[in-house]
Amino acid sequence: MRYAAPIARLLDELERLPGIGPKSAQRIAYFVLRSDEEVAERLAEALLDIKRAIHFCPLCFDFAEGEVCEVCADSERDVSIICVVEETRDVAAVERTGEFRGLYHVLGGVISPVDGIGPEQLRVRELLDRLAQGEVTEVIIATNPTVEGETTALYLARLLKPLGVQVTRIASGLPVGGDLDYADEVTLGRALEARREL
Amino acid sequence: MRYAAPIARLLDELERLPGIGPKSAQRIAYFVLRSDEEVAERLAEALLDIKRAIHFCPLCFDFAEGEVCEVCADSERDVSIICVVEETRDVAAVERTGEFRGLYHVLGGVISPVDGIGPEQLRVRELLDRLAQGEVTEVIIATNPTVEGETTALYLARLLKPLGVQVTRIASGLPVGGDLDYADEVTLGRALEARREL
Repeated sequence: MRYAAPIARLLDELERLPGIGPKSAQRIAYFVLRSDEEVAERLAEALLDIKRAIHFCPLCFDFAEGEVCEVCADSERDVSIICVVEETRDVAAVERTGEFRGLYHVLGGVISPVDGIGPEQLRVRELLDRLAQGEVTEVIIATNPTVEGETTALYLARLLKPLGVQVTRIASGLPVGGDLDYADEVTLGRALEARREL
Repeated sequence: MRYAAPIARLLDELERLPGIGPKSAQRIAYFVLRSDEEVAERLAEALLDIKRAIHFCPLCFDFAEGEVCEVCADSERDVSIICVVEETRDVAAVERTGEFRGLYHVLGGVISPVDGIGPEQLRVRELLDRLAQGEVTEVIIATNPTVEGETTALYLARLLKPLGVQVTRIASGLPVGGDLDYADEVTLGRALEARREL
């Protein structure tokens, strides 16, 4: 089947997205074609908007709309606790638990020698800079309970403990080998509650 | 988690799409955020383009970029055979078999008394208009092998046979109760080949 060029182009672009195969792309394209023009326009606008309006928070490296992200800008948050996560999506996961009132630090990955990722490729230096300000008393390491996540946690614990800061790790209420992003709120909330010192 | 407004808006729009839940929407939004600006721009452009450039073919009611669709515009196609399908996506499915060189007619649904859809809601009148031109000698009814699809096939057979046109039905090589859109090319190709007269 040769699709009309504009359809083929949209299918192409849709298939670049994570989790979208040829079938889903076709369903979405046909849905857009059948829908009011407004549906395509609003989605296109939202796509452009997100790239125009969103950047990395210079403090925690989560996505931010203002100068800093909403969490860093919130004066109600406890600035003495930083929760270190792998990716921005993990911030959303921890926030959903409603258990954590401190700040975040997004590493941007985990130590993975196989993939050539060492601490220099992560935002470890930036974390040290934040701790150097002296306000932080506890760092919760909430990397995924995978081999790389545990390695990264141990590396950070060894690096941070000499600075006189308490370093804790979320409890393995999550199944080992699992993914923080897929945990339900209750499990992840309990894991946060039962964090242990490293 | 309160997402920044532009992210929340994109998640909203993405979740309107078929097959996209909150998790997939988040993965896509974060993918777009992490990617070059170009990714969002190209996708947005493709979305707007498809609505600007694509309309219904006035002959077969498939999607068309030009005045008529590519199939109807192709002088190599056999204008004496029309394959009647439920939806535009079924045209793509039949085209993928490479077995069919005639034209199409998209009904826009099936007869379904439960949903209040009778022949008047489908493009049956337009099919009769095409047959009235006298060039068509065979109508292949390729509605899905579901209760509604079979009902529609029988209805059309009874309506069209008195016009002196041969009415055939694709063979049930497809599992009964299945969906044309999910059939593999070989199965659907065989079903086309083994079509029987109604």
